[in-house]
Parts: sequence; structure tokens; C-alpha cells
Amino acid sequence: MAGSVLGERFKISTWGESHGAGVGVVVDGCPAGLPLKEEDIQFFLDKRKPGETKYATPRREEDKVTILSGVFEGKTTGTPISMLVENTSQKSKDYSEIAGYYRPGHADYTFDAKYGFRDYRGGGRSSGRETIGRVAAGAVAMKILEQLGIRITAYTKQIGNLVCREEKMQPGNIEKSPLRMPDLERSAEAEEYLSNKMKEHDSAGGVIECIITGMPAGIGEPVFGKLDALLAGNMVSIGAVKGVEIGSGFAAAEKSGSENNDEFYMTPAGEIHKRTNSAGGILGGISDGDDIVIRAAFKPTPSIFRPQKTVNKKGEEIEVSIKGRHDPVIMPRAVVVVEAMAAVTVVDLLFVGMSSRIDRIKEFYMD
Amino acid sequence: MAGSVLGERFKISTWGESHGAGVGVVVDGCPAGLPLKEEDIQFFLDKRKPGETKYATPRREEDKVTILSGVFEGKTTGTPISMLVENTSQKSKDYSEIAGYYRPGHADYTFDAKYGFRDYRGGGRSSGRETIGRVAAGAVAMKILEQLGIRITAYTKQIGNLVCREEKMQPGNIEKSPLRMPDLERSAEAEEYLSNKMKEHDSAGGVIECIITGMPAGIGEPVFGKLDALLAGNMVSIGAVKGVEIGSGFAAAEKSGSENNDEFYMTPAGEIHKRTNSAGGILGGISDGDDIVIRAAFKPTPSIFRPQKTVNKKGEEIEVSIKGRHDPVIMPRAVVVVEAMAAVTVVDLLFVGMSSRIDRIKEFYMD
Amino acid sequence: MAGSVLGERFKISTWGESHGAGVGVVVDGCPAGLPLKEEDIQFFLDKRKPGETKYATPRREEDKVTILSGVFEGKTTGTPISMLVENTSQKSKDYSEIAGYYRPGHADYTFDAKYGFRDYRGGGRSSGRETIGRVAAGAVAMKILEQLGIRITAYTKQIGNLVCREEKMQPGNIEKSPLRMPDLERSAEAEEYLSNKMKEHDSAGGVIECIITGMPAGIGEPVFGKLDALLAGNMVSIGAVKGVEIGSGFAAAEKSGSENNDEFYMTPAGEIHKRTNSAGGILGGISDGDDIVIRAAFKPTPSIFRPQKTVNKKGEEIEVSIKGRHDPVIMPRAVVVVEAMAAVTVVDLLFVGMSSRIDRIKEFYMD
Amino acid sequence: MAGSVLGERFKISTWGESHGAGVGVVVDGCPAGLPLKEEDIQFFLDKRKPGETKYATPRREEDKVTILSGVFEGKTTGTPISMLVENTSQKSKDYSEIAGYYRPGHADYTFDAKYGFRDYRGGGRSSGRETIGRVAAGAVAMKILEQLGIRITAYTKQIGNLVCREEKMQPGNIEKSPLRMPDLERSAEAEEYLSNKMKEHDSAGGVIECIITGMPAGIGEPVFGKLDALLAGNMVSIGAVKGVEIGSGFAAAEKSGSENNDEFYMTPAGEIHKRTNSAGGILGGISDGDDIVIRAAFKPTPSIFRPQKTVNKKGEEIEVSIKGRHDPVIMPRAVVVVEAMAAVTVVDLLFVGMSSRIDRIKEFYMD
Repeated sequence: MAGSVLGERFKISTWGESHGAGVGVVVDGCPAGLPLKEEDIQFFLDKRKPGETKYATPRREEDKVTILSGVFEGKTTGTPISMLVENTSQKSKDYSEIAGYYRPGHADYTFDAKYGFRDYRGGGRSSGRETIGRVAAGAVAMKILEQLGIRITAYTKQIGNLVCREEKMQPGNIEKSPLRMPDLERSAEAEEYLSNKMKEHDSAGGVIECIITGMPAGIGEPVFGKLDALLAGNMVSIGAVKGVEIGSGFAAAEKSGSENNDEFYMTPAGEIHKRTNSAGGILGGISDGDDIVIRAAFKPTPSIFRPQKTVNKKGEEIEVSIKGRHDPVIMPRAVVVVEAMAAVTVVDLLFVGMSSRIDRIKEFYMD
Repeated sequence: MAGSVLGERFKISTWGESHGAGVGVVVDGCPAGLPLKEEDIQFFLDKRKPGETKYATPRREEDKVTILSGVFEGKTTGTPISMLVENTSQKSKDYSEIAGYYRPGHADYTFDAKYGFRDYRGGGRSSGRETIGRVAAGAVAMKILEQLGIRITAYTKQIGNLVCREEKMQPGNIEKSPLRMPDLERSAEAEEYLSNKMKEHDSAGGVIECIITGMPAGIGEPVFGKLDALLAGNMVSIGAVKGVEIGSGFAAAEKSGSENNDEFYMTPAGEIHKRTNSAGGILGGISDGDDIVIRAAFKPTPSIFRPQKTVNKKGEEIEVSIKGRHDPVIMPRAVVVVEAMAAVTVVDLLFVGMSSRIDRIKEFYMD
Repeated sequence: MAGSVLGERFKISTWGESHGAGVGVVVDGCPAGLPLKEEDIQFFLDKRKPGETKYATPRREEDKVTILSGVFEGKTTGTPISMLVENTSQKSKDYSEIAGYYRPGHADYTFDAKYGFRDYRGGGRSSGRETIGRVAAGAVAMKILEQLGIRITAYTKQIGNLVCREEKMQPGNIEKSPLRMPDLERSAEAEEYLSNKMKEHDSAGGVIECIITGMPAGIGEPVFGKLDALLAGNMVSIGAVKGVEIGSGFAAAEKSGSENNDEFYMTPAGEIHKRTNSAGGILGGISDGDDIVIRAAFKPTPSIFRPQKTVNKKGEEIEVSIKGRHDPVIMPRAVVVVEAMAAVTVVDLLFVGMSSRIDRIKEFYMD
Repeated sequence: MAGSVLGERFKISTWGESHGAGVGVVVDGCPAGLPLKEEDIQFFLDKRKPGETKYATPRREEDKVTILSGVFEGKTTGTPISMLVENTSQKSKDYSEIAGYYRPGHADYTFDAKYGFRDYRGGGRSSGRETIGRVAAGAVAMKILEQLGIRITAYTKQIGNLVCREEKMQPGNIEKSPLRMPDLERSAEAEEYLSNKMKEHDSAGGVIECIITGMPAGIGEPVFGKLDALLAGNMVSIGAVKGVEIGSGFAAAEKSGSENNDEFYMTPAGEIHKRTNSAGGILGGISDGDDIVIRAAFKPTPSIFRPQKTVNKKGEEIEVSIKGRHDPVIMPRAVVVVEAMAAVTVVDLLFVGMSSRIDRIKEFYMD
């Protein structure tokens, strides 16, 4: 479970540093016969790119993906899919200065503590570019989910203390907002808030919400392989995420059982549904057929231009002003990373869940 | 990663239902030479027992542990440690009624959806008794951490909206409070709040906070094996946990980078420390030598005595009143479960981390 | 992959030493709905028992299994199945002498080298009793395979240089032979050979062959998850196995391609078959629909009564004569262990293989 | 354990087909601080290349490796090492014919049975080119072992029935023989044997032996993580391997215990050694400090030019003559693949074994 490999049946191995030759991922366990082309992956990678807004780094990154294996005549073959994105826009000289000191809020110090030294160019493996491998793998997972009628949508729910209102959020608004906030009024307010932060050479945090629709009931394994446990762990594995909640989340702490329990009822079509969704679509770690609802809290970008105190490798206390090109807010670009982590988690558990019942196994192998 | 097996180098396999013959765990990967006796395990299991307070189920459970393997002449041998707790107090007749319907907030419906049927006696595998295996494994992990000077302490931070105040919390208070709340005034208020909930045949949720002290810097693996990612996932794997946060957590969303970044400084002893701990002791997924701070939100106990609407297996809408013996609040007993999950996570990553540097590997094998 | 846990989707955790409280196994990932009772397990454990012949240890072991979890109303629930066999006949005083020295051919020295000390009573974890957990898990796997029309049969193919002849082997003979040799003439000769070895206070080795029939084509994963690779590794994990071969095995080294290749042809029923089976039913690591054929070479029992030279823990060279109750030949009792390892390997790969094709996944989840 | 990912602490993910864009591997868990450059990898890849002899395919493959990540300023950083070898010499038109039928002895049929279709160009993922990823990962493992004084040497022990004689084998001869046979007389005889096979449009099999020297005692995990079990499984994962043996191997079957047991004695330096090495350096699955000895049997190359009967996808019986460029014997090029698999197995278990003893863990973390 440790390191850069994730998953049991849909297994992804990501690799790459911000200023090496490139970044990428190998996906092992993708089923054969899935239509897949580079455009499918590129679509998601493009959502991760800085874009044209002023709330993102002015770096221009091409991030063109190449599929190196596992696809033949437009379909996956069942063997590992290796995907590569070359690093083209990296200017190593930008970073030479930070080699000698520890940026507050970054992993510089802990990488040195762990490994004895580090690739100091732009964060190396702890850079946001690491998420390219996740997004590419997530794009493959998304193609699988599409075949099964499962849909994953994430968006910026909150920036600073500006929270989208349930009744004002429209899925169609997400791409209309430069911040991917589906409540456009809040989005406008958040733009102003961000502009102020930028003037103050500071940055902002927020919350991303992710909804999974079309989930069949019964997905997730008991105890340690719970759907919510794996979703939560995988969300927190995204750099900058400091918290995660499912359904009613931290608000559940203040509720009573009678408020938080979701009553079951029968739909006219004879299906079992819940009247409310405090559970966030998961009971006992297993999907209940309702929408999965998960939120991740992102800390403000630690790279800020205002002066900060820190120490250098010689053990001297110094004051630094970080230079370079940094996003004042990470959520708009992280939305697709959240979707990717949700997708790989769900696909893995869908595959794992195929052997839960002997009757279905018999059906599978003996028909 | 799925199912009832957790960990890479310190691997635990838990088993057992609330009303079967017993519950237990096999720990594979415990190092040889660790002093271990049944009393060491029992100490933690006793913290999980209902106890004498009125805020816990009146069930009397003995929960006596037996070590079946892996210990010889008072020390672990390096081979699997199998631990067994027999179920003695279970009265199956209590539960026969719930076989036919789905309790709101419970996993009855999702287990049926997944497996086609379920062991309906007291929740079966989704019962709180499942945590006995976790606590027993956690006790072994705690013994290991003790040898390394690492200490884990959890407590009830919040019940309902009553939150312990930083300045009033004393570690010595934890066991003085029947709710394991280290701010004794808040504890008294929470007792009153709970008494009211119990009168209303209702239940309460809350938050447990867990502090890990004495952690060396450098523990945790990049990307998916981040210390915070694994802690978060393993916390959410505890039934009833709906959210988790590390360090500043969800509050980070509302902060600016200059507020949330922790400045480094040099201690008089020449060590690198942080002035604040928004990071919760983890930067880039790797421990920074500071205290690890993690919080888990628990939903209110779903078993409440007041009438609730639900459906039965025949697809009829019914009203039910759950009977039996249930905790109106789960946190006081869950504190030790949180500690256990923290302990197994940290031990696993400590072991995994031993091969991070070639110089230390050489030292290990060639001296 | 290391230690006492094996498998990905059908995961077994074995535990126990020869002279501790007992031995056992936890099976995680057994599908729900499988009829299972203790008698199903006991049937296989009884095949492992010393029996009444003079070619086995005169120890009387009861080896009664108890199922502690995972079965409800006669069917598996999908949750972990914990099985326990108590150690009843162990006499620790028999073994006190060997605590101080290293028996040739045993793991005494290597356990001390690894762990610093060992449970010296009867071999501890390296004792043959460790295989009880394997056989119990194998019995569950066998029940699953039975549902799928897959059958596993192993037998003693060779003792010393006495090899069963293909044309004389009858499956019905296996249980007629005290050595489980299906060529009864060779069995009789082997009995004489063994009687001589016993008179000489010596022991004998041999070969077990295992045939898996009814295998569907397409099972096994490319590269490292090959069916033959996992079968081979798992066979060699049985103590005393020094070699393994699939199909034509080592004989393939002396053949030419035209001799070793198996030609495909069409059966009258329109199925693709092979005229010969050098492949042992596996091509490119994937089952081809033919019988799987695998052989494991067992070294002679290292516990022999004649004097041997060795060293003790003080570093003195000494001469020892091993006492106690030992099998002069291990194969007759190991036959069921080979079957068990084959069964758990095949079941795991059958489950893993369910997600190989997107069309079949769609069928599974959308019908 | 299934699929294209192998290892627990030193984890490799290989990818690529013979006629895709390239082949490669990601190594996760390589310790930081190891000097590594492309030449180190290339040295081993060059041993795998067809070379100049007439006993190998006349295909010219460049097989130039590029390190894409995980190395900074000449040293590994502890993060994943991604290595890429582009496919340059592949001529897809050579293979178009075989798309429609199943070559005897190849995985064509089983891939179709598993996945519904296959990348038919040159074997796709089941091609020998798949081993490039293994060799590249093995090269990294070799660099680690070099630091620890562990050395792995493999060579062709046997071709047809021509077996190198113990007393005539000289390590210095390996690279002098075009067949990598260290008994040069046997090598010359094997050349003649092979010439005849080639004239007959046929192919030959053989045996590779691998010796690991400098192994510390105590490496390997009990039960399923045995050193010999993992070595055996990983050897059989190499395409064309049909059998494997450790130490006395299949010959042990014909020996008595007194012949096969290795007596311990004290060296003048006060070390515990064995007088003989039937054990092949492994007792109870754990290294005993002696040389590890393992042999793998290779089937003759299935691609032969003489006519063979088979069936096509339409279900017609046909006769085919395989064209193209094929090795008449695989062992000389497979020697480095065997070394690579041995290296990755040993490194993984060395890392896993670091947490076997609490005293050594304390020393590691508290000094």
C-alpha cells in the first residue's frame, strides 16, 4: 500500500518529478476490450492544466500524453497501459535557490529527513506535477465507469469561507466558472477574495466536493476495504488535502441519531431508497445505491510571495521570498485530480467485488 | 487492501461476528524478541469494554483474550500472533426480530445487497465487536512503539457541540471523565447533554482527537503511502467515522497561506522545529518530527429506541423501535480503537521506511 | 507476498506452532453463499493425519477443526472464516534436548540466524504442523472448485527411484495404497524400500504429482501472475519441496521444439484441443483448457535416528541422534497439502480473472 | 501478486509489447542514495541482446535504455525509477499472417481465450521482449546487491542432454562461450548439436543454473514468503521455464535422509558452515549463509520453421510454417533474465527482513 503503487485489481504505478524527463503511470489490470485513445486521456489532463485564468500559474505546460502500451487497434488488450507526459516547460534555474533551504508548508525538510537529500527542482516528486499520473490513470478508470453507467463529478465547493449554496449549484455552471464553482455568485465573490489574496502576495484554501452517481448497491468490502475508507485515504493522498468527510461528515458529530439516520422507503418502482443521505451513499463501508458524496479540504497553496521565516540546511534562520510561478489557489486544477482518485478507487472495488457471491461466480464461469 | 487484512510489513487479519464463537486477529510481521503477554493486550481490550457508566450498553462482556501462537517464553518469535476473544454474553434471541428488516443507519441493507443474505445477529461482521481484533492488534503495535519512545493518546474532543478547550485539556483527566473528555467541565456538560438524549431515546455523535508524540521525522512514503493518507483511510475504516482531518484540517480551507504555513526555526539544541503545527506533524505525507494530530468525526449511534420508519425484506414500509442494549454514544469506547488504528498504521510505516536509504541498509547488513 | 499471508482475492493467513496452543488459518475473500461445515474441512485434515500405517509417525493427533466465524446457517457469509485446530498431543519434554543444537536439514539454525532465538519445541513454526492451516484453507477452496466443476487430485508418483508407470496408475488405487501410490505394484516395492530405510534408521524422498481437471481456458495473468509461476512458488513454499515442474518439466530441456510443441486440433464437438500435453495445461502462464499437470520433488525427511554430526549453540561440534516420532517418508501425508496449495492458487486466479474483459464486467454489473 | 507488478518493498511494474512503442518498467522502493546511471542498466540489457552468434535471431535490436525519473545528480532519490526502451526494429508486416491462427507452444490461443482478442504482432505481451523490463529492474537490484557484497551469476548448465561438468566449469568461461556454457568442451558439443537442430529447422531446450554468493544467513520469511518459494515462482514466471529446483532438487527424491542432510561444522574462524549443500543455501525457506543454488529448465523455442499442424480462429485445422527471426535456443540470452529475477527477489526479501527483530529496529531508529 505504501509508495507510488495503488490498488489491488486496478493497479496504478505513478512516477516522475516536476523537472525530470517526464511524468507518467502504468495501469495494470485494465480489462481488455475497452475503447481507448490518447484523446480520452488528454481530455482530463487538459482540465488539470493552468488554463487562461489569472488564478493559475502563468506557466505554459503542454502535457501531451502518449500511450506506450496496452492498446491495440483502438482497444485495451488487458495488459499494462503505460502513459507518458514529457516535461517540456521546466526551467531548472528557477529553482536552484531553494536547494539550500526549507520552504514552509512544503515537503523539502521531510524529504531530506527521509532520504538524506532531495531533487530540489520544483518540489521533485512532491510537486503538483505528480498528479498527472493520477489523472491519466483516472481517465482510464472513467472510461470503464462510463461503460457501467457510473458518473463522477467534482467541483470547488468552497474558497476561503465562501461556500456554494446547495440550491444555487448547477452542474452546467462548473465549467462556466474560472474557479469551477457551480454557484456563480459565490464564484464571483471568490474571484474578488482571491484577487485580494494575490495583491497581498498570499494564497487561499478551500473544499472540493465529489459526487458519484449511478453506483450499484453492494460495492465496498467490510472492515478495512470499506468504500469510504479507501476513498478517504486516497483523497488525503493528494498533496494539500488536510481533511475529508463523507455524507454528513463532521456535521454528524453535532446531530442526534434521529436526525442523522436516513429512513428507508420503497419507490413506486419497488426499489429501496433512503429519504435523506447523511450516509453519503455508504453504509457499513458498502454502497447503498444512493449518490456517493465526499468532500476534501485543501490547505492554501504554501508557495506565497510574501517574506517568510525559515531555516536553511546549514541550520541558519533566514527570511525568504519564494519566487517562480505558483497557483494562488489549487482547487480549480485539483477538481480533476479528485475525480481521478474517486474513479480509480471505485473501479478497483467494483473489480474486487465480483467474487463476493458463489452463485454469481458460478454464473460467470459456467454459463 | 480490501477486506479484513491490513498492512504491508505489520499485517493484521481480523475476523469474527458479534454472535459467532468469537472474534480475533492474526498479526503477521511482528518482530521477534518483543516482550508480550496476555495482560498487555487485555489492558487495551478493557478500555474498550462498556464499563460501569450509564453512557454505555449495560451488556456485560468479559472479552478475555488468549494468545494462541507467536509468543514463546514471554517474547514474540517473529511468527504470526493469533489472538482470540470468545463471545460469551451474546443472546441470539435478542436479535431474531431484526432479521427481516433494515435498520436505518446500519449496514443491514448493504450487506444483503452485497452478499445476498447476512448474519443478522447483532450486526454480524458490521458490529462494533469487530473492533476487538483491531484493538488486540493495536496493543501489539503499542508495545512496539513503546520500545521506540513513540506514544499515542486519543480522547473524546467533542460530544454534540460541546468541544474541549485546548487550555483546559489535561492528559491526566482522560480517565477521570466517564466520557474520556480531558476538559472536565465540558465532560460534565456533555454528561447532561447525553442524559437528555437518552431520555429522548436518542443518541449523540462527536469527535475523537489522537496525538502521536515522539515520532521521528521521515516516516511515510510519497504519493499513495503518505502517513496522513493511511491514517485517514484507516480511521474512516472504523464504523461510524464520517470524517477525518489532520492538523488544521477543514479550518485550513478558510486560512490564507501566510496563516497556515508553519515557520521553521532552530531550537537551542540545534534541531529544526516548526513554530506552529497546522501541518499536524506531516508535510508531503512524511512526518516532520512534530506531534501528529488527527481527528475523527463519529456519527451518533444509529441504534436508537425511538420509533423509526424503514422497509423490510418483503419490500413493505414499516415502523420499528430498536430494542436491545446499545451505547447512546460511541466515542468513550472508540478512543482505544482510534489509538489502535493509529498504532498499526505507524508501525507499518516505520517498518516500511527501514529500506529508504542505501547507506542505512549497508549499515544494517554489513556491520 | 512475504510471511504467512497468501493470495490476493482469496487470502489466507495461517498461524501456529507445533507445540503452542493450536494452529489455524483465517480465510478472507471466500464468497458468500457457499455451503460449508466442519466436516468438509475435517475430511481433508484427516487425509493429513498420520493414519494407521507404519510409514508414519506413531503420534496420535486428533486435529479436530472448529470454524469460529464466517459461516451462518450452514453457508459462508462472505466475511473471514477463522478455523482453529488445537494442539493436544504435543509433549514438550520430547524436544527440550534439541533446544541447544542445530539439527541437520532442519530450519533450527536459520531461525536462530533470523530471529535471534526460536521456539525449539518440535520445529515451532517450521514444523509440519504448520501445513494444517494450509489444508483447512485448501478445503474451503476445494468446496468452491467443486461448484465450478474443477477437480484436483494429487498422489505419490515416486519414492526413491520407484516411479509409478503411467499405464498402471488408477485414481481408485490412491487410497488403497498406504503410500498413496496409484500404481499398486510400485507401491508394494516402495513399501519394501521404506522398510529397509527404517531398519537403517534412515528416511526417503520422492515426488508428488498433481492433476487439475475441468479447468476453463483463460485462467492466469501475464508476466508475474502466471498460473504456473504461482503454482510453482506455492508448491515450493511447502517445507521439504526442493523442485517443481509443469508438464514436460525438466525433460523439456532434452527435447527439440518439434517434440515438445503440442499441436492443436478440433474436437468433433468443435472445441480446440491439444494432441499432447507437454505444456501441462498452461501456455504463456494461462490455462489452455487441458489438464494442469504439476510435480513437486520432496527431500527425504531430515529427522533420522542414525547418528549425525552437527554443532550446538555454543559453537561445539557434536554428534546427535534425533529421538521422537518422525515420518520416515513425508509424501503420503503431503499429498493433501499439495492439493490444498493447488486449490488456493487456482481459486485466487479464478477470482482475479473475473475482471479481465470489459464486456463480461458490463454483463456482470448491468444485467 | 497477479499481473505485471511484483514485489513488496522493491516493487517492479513492467509493461510493453514486442511491437508497440516500447517496453519498460517502473521500480518503486529503490532506496535513495544509490549511484545509478543508464550505463549500469545498459550493461545488462546488452547481455540480453541477440549478439553476433548464429545461435540467436539475426534481428538487430538497439535496446537503448532511458531513465525517465528517480535519479538526480547521479544518485537514486528514493522515488520511482521509470525506464524506457523504445521498440525500433519491429516490422509488423512480418507477423500479420499469424493473426489468424494459433502457433503451437505459444500463448496465442490462451490470450484469445482470456481476453477475447490479442495483440498478435510478434507475441505482444507474451513475447520475449517483455523480459527487457525485468532485466532493467534486475540491473537496479544488482547495483543494490553489489553494495552489500552479494553476487549473482547464472550460466547455461545444459543444452539438450549436454550437461556442464562441475569440475570443468570456470566462471571466466561464461562469456567465452557463445552459449554462455562455462564448460567449454560441452559448449563446443552443444554448438554442434544446435547446428544440427537448425539444419532440421528445429530448436533446443536446456537448463540455466544460478548461484548467489555472499548471502547473509537469515533472509527469507516463513511459510509463504520463503526465499526458495519466491525464487522458484519468479523463475517460472519467465516464459519457457517448465521446471525449477533448489540445491539437490529432483535428485533429492532418490536420496536417503543421511545422504541429503548437510552436516554443520565450525570453521576455524568460528563460523557455522555446512559440509555439503544439498539445501542449496536455504533451510526452512531462510538463507543459511551458504551459496544459493537454483536451476531452471527451459523448453525448446516453440517457434520452429518446420511445418506444424494447428488450428485457426475459424476452427479449421491447418498446417503452418513459422517464418521470421527466431532464436533456435533461448538460454544464452535468458541467462541475464534469470539473474535479474534472482536479484529482484533477493533485494525484496532483504528489505522485508529488516523488521524481523525488535532489537535491530530499536538500534535502527534510536541510535
